[in-house]
Amino acid sequence: MTFDWSALDNARVFDLAQPMRRGMPQSPNHPPFQMSLVRRHGDYIRDDGSSAANEVIVTGGHVGTHVDALAHVSHRGRLHGDVDAFSVMSHEGFARLGIDGFTPYVGRCVLLDVARLHGVETLPPGYGITAEDLAEAEKATGTTVRSGDAVLVGSGWSRLWDRHDDFVGARDGVPGPDESAATWLVRAGVRLAGGETIAFEQIKPGAGHALLPVHRMFLVDHGINIVETMRLTELLDAGVTELILVLAPLNIVGATGAPARPLAVVTDR
Amino acid sequence: MTFDWSALDNARVFDLAQPMRRGMPQSPNHPPFQMSLVRRHGDYIRDDGSSAANEVIVTGGHVGTHVDALAHVSHRGRLHGDVDAFSVMSHEGFARLGIDGFTPYVGRCVLLDVARLHGVETLPPGYGITAEDLAEAEKATGTTVRSGDAVLVGSGWSRLWDRHDDFVGARDGVPGPDESAATWLVRAGVRLAGGETIAFEQIKPGAGHALLPVHRMFLVDHGINIVETMRLTELLDAGVTELILVLAPLNIVGATGAPARPLAVVTDR
Amino acid sequence: MTFDWSALDNARVFDLAQPMRRGMPQSPNHPPFQMSLVRRHGDYIRDDGSSAANEVIVTGGHVGTHVDALAHVSHRGRLHGDVDAFSVMSHEGFARLGIDGFTPYVGRCVLLDVARLHGVETLPPGYGITAEDLAEAEKATGTTVRSGDAVLVGSGWSRLWDRHDDFVGARDGVPGPDESAATWLVRAGVRLAGGETIAFEQIKPGAGHALLPVHRMFLVDHGINIVETMRLTELLDAGVTELILVLAPLNIVGATGAPARPLAVVTDR
Amino acid sequence: MTFDWSALDNARVFDLAQPMRRGMPQSPNHPPFQMSLVRRHGDYIRDDGSSAANEVIVTGGHVGTHVDALAHVSHRGRLHGDVDAFSVMSHEGFARLGIDGFTPYVGRCVLLDVARLHGVETLPPGYGITAEDLAEAEKATGTTVRSGDAVLVGSGWSRLWDRHDDFVGARDGVPGPDESAATWLVRAGVRLAGGETIAFEQIKPGAGHALLPVHRMFLVDHGINIVETMRLTELLDAGVTELILVLAPLNIVGATGAPARPLAVVTDR
Repeated sequence: MTFDWSALDNARVFDLAQPMRRGMPQSPNHPPFQMSLVRRHGDYIRDDGSSAANEVIVTGGHVGTHVDALAHVSHRGRLHGDVDAFSVMSHEGFARLGIDGFTPYVGRCVLLDVARLHGVETLPPGYGITAEDLAEAEKATGTTVRSGDAVLVGSGWSRLWDRHDDFVGARDGVPGPDESAATWLVRAGVRLAGGETIAFEQIKPGAGHALLPVHRMFLVDHGINIVETMRLTELLDAGVTELILVLAPLNIVGATGAPARPLAVVTDR
Repeated sequence: MTFDWSALDNARVFDLAQPMRRGMPQSPNHPPFQMSLVRRHGDYIRDDGSSAANEVIVTGGHVGTHVDALAHVSHRGRLHGDVDAFSVMSHEGFARLGIDGFTPYVGRCVLLDVARLHGVETLPPGYGITAEDLAEAEKATGTTVRSGDAVLVGSGWSRLWDRHDDFVGARDGVPGPDESAATWLVRAGVRLAGGETIAFEQIKPGAGHALLPVHRMFLVDHGINIVETMRLTELLDAGVTELILVLAPLNIVGATGAPARPLAVVTDR
Repeated sequence: MTFDWSALDNARVFDLAQPMRRGMPQSPNHPPFQMSLVRRHGDYIRDDGSSAANEVIVTGGHVGTHVDALAHVSHRGRLHGDVDAFSVMSHEGFARLGIDGFTPYVGRCVLLDVARLHGVETLPPGYGITAEDLAEAEKATGTTVRSGDAVLVGSGWSRLWDRHDDFVGARDGVPGPDESAATWLVRAGVRLAGGETIAFEQIKPGAGHALLPVHRMFLVDHGINIVETMRLTELLDAGVTELILVLAPLNIVGATGAPARPLAVVTDR
Repeated sequence: MTFDWSALDNARVFDLAQPMRRGMPQSPNHPPFQMSLVRRHGDYIRDDGSSAANEVIVTGGHVGTHVDALAHVSHRGRLHGDVDAFSVMSHEGFARLGIDGFTPYVGRCVLLDVARLHGVETLPPGYGITAEDLAEAEKATGTTVRSGDAVLVGSGWSRLWDRHDDFVGARDGVPGPDESAATWLVRAGVRLAGGETIAFEQIKPGAGHALLPVHRMFLVDHGINIVETMRLTELLDAGVTELILVLAPLNIVGATGAPARPLAVVTDR
């Protein structure tokens, strides 16, 4: 009975989720986020003078900071592990490979800050992050990505959250990993990978989400979950490179993804 | 640079959230949970043969496992800290005391298993958990609740999750803390308290949610957040009494509550 | 330029829709109706002192008074006209046979009051309306059903609207046409048929919607639209037997059904 | 028993509603329209080989073709008839002056085609329709607006429905009645007035919905309902000036507006 609670005393906790509100940046492919109060105080008053307020929320599984389940993407009708996509989807969602199949992750995570590597606060729109970028960013951390780790790739893009159109990047594009970077992560044996943009992909100016090769490589070919629209601002500013990532998306049975509020626990030694 | 990753190797992680699906038990006062696939694989196929599926989700801030924000309840028009409820609520939700004001909790938590204390798997419907119950359950843990801790109160009710009508308890009631138990928790200086039922209250047979005294004491009088509809089954079965609770509800700006997927991290020593 | 506006002066207009509100009776197979104010007066005040309120609505195509599109039901994978169901449905709904393919109906309608025929206000739960019932009710009207007409079948069930559980009839069933009655309507060449219950079917006690033979006959085999959950109370009380039915469901592209507010225009001669 | 059904034989029915689909033009102040299939054919197959598909719909009361209830707008906290706005609104919507208080309209309607008056298909963006425009357009009809009539004002704007950004007019504005035109309609004693744009107002380039004087005059001061986003294309093309308008919005209890599918019945004499 001697758990060392002092370990937590020295820990800093970083909130890695963007705040969710109507009008926030999100993909036009997904239901627009809405939150509306249903009951307000005073609408119904109990005998003791108390009153309760509540709300209705409309959202999507890929809205705000979220985790992509393996069922999110198929290739030629097959999901990861050669599962027939059509045989597992119904009004109940996905009977296999949905977000309910994702075990909450509490484990080692390495943050590869590619923006810092390039000496910028934010990578340029449309920039393709390469394998070389990741390898050099890893060197800069002084540690190494191990098999089974989570890896977050820092682009600084979360700094643009309040600039809606720039963040979405329909015109100018969005930075993200190209296929070489994705291959590097696959070879490193990562359990999951995350970033700050709506889609963990290089989106070239005006190209939209026409092709999403990294999604296919990760979700279909290699069974690697993707975390998107993370808020890494504070973590990048603090120069953190190694952390405990706590990632537990809502357990929505059969969904292709779900909102999450990931935390970074950082212990200075 | 010598973080002791082996600490995590010995840790067990328990998922404390109930799975979310259409038809799950929830309060009739809140929007019924819905998840529906919008796009299915094959609806739109990209040039490379890949296809993405997604969903729309309708829910409430108090649906499934969730955290109550202080703004959830008012008394005579005042929120916690004597804030005028009417001046802070609008189409944007609550400008103060909403769930976005809740700092994610990563810290010590004591589980007081009242069901075990009474030698039952599940407390009877309508049972009122008393201060004495909590004091005795605390003794049984071999540790003490400290100021600033989270406390979970075990009733075993999450075992009834798949028995919809019993879980909701409209007819027979639901076990929960009475005012003496709430006072005990307040005096112990807890930061937050959680349980397995839809409302952290004693609900007598047929009484419904006519009065919610514990909500008023916690949310309005003392600024203590409440976690509801938790899944404690595995934690209770394992006899865990002391744990790290990671509680990070969705950061829905201005909401009176939000779904969460709390985790328990338990380290055996 | 001599339209006889006096014709309208003598017309009575009956509202044939049930009011829509949270908690109203509806099928558990469809999304529960919700309406919540988003903005209330005072939330945002314009420079001239004016303020606008609005709402969010969540509903289904088969909620409240509504029209079933032909795409609603398939048999062995085929829709009406031997259309392959799978080839016409996607994230955009149905490319064929959706409710957008229903031309608003303004035309002759005969009301067959089977409750009156049996000397009751409301047919018993689970009662099967037969071809004989319809033939006798037709005789009682003094007119005949013609090819292309709309036919409404009166059961008096809309009188139970405020008795939620009785109206839904999960336990005791709901009256409706059996297959002989459906055949009678098909042979009469009706363009569409409507009734007061959630499903235009005989629902036996405890049987639920396990089989819906009339839906299959009408929607799949014969291309006859169905109107459900109509409010016929006033029309039945007035003893109306012949009317102009104005039926224009919301034009929701690709939907399998849509809410409507049908009107009866009755001219006394 | 001699209703003259031949009257209907000579009638033409015009559909005055725009089709509703995801992405259609609507005001950014209201919940974005969504329709998604929940069950598709094959998801659940009944014993007889039949299967039913259905959908979930998310929308607002002022989305698509719709009617504004008097409760939609307040001025200095008062609704029409000096009703205190705050005393009648709650989680149930409006207890007074909601759309459920609107009696379905079946009656005389005059169409004043201002676009035709100006010799254009579509009035210019931001154009202010004046009292003079309405007076001249009325003369051109050869008839007069009578007290209690409905009046539709033709701008030709519904022709732009498929040009999303032009239709919404955020940049260039939208044509609509100025205050002189609204006064003209008030003096004519109209029961309701309708148009093709999202808001029945003159919206100047870049001005947005900063002020809505016609709404205030009609809804608050004079109790005149407004119909918006109507599809008048076919009616304008046909040169119709006098018609029977059938206007029956969904009866959503307590809502500030509701979608409708208005019809024009035109009888050639």
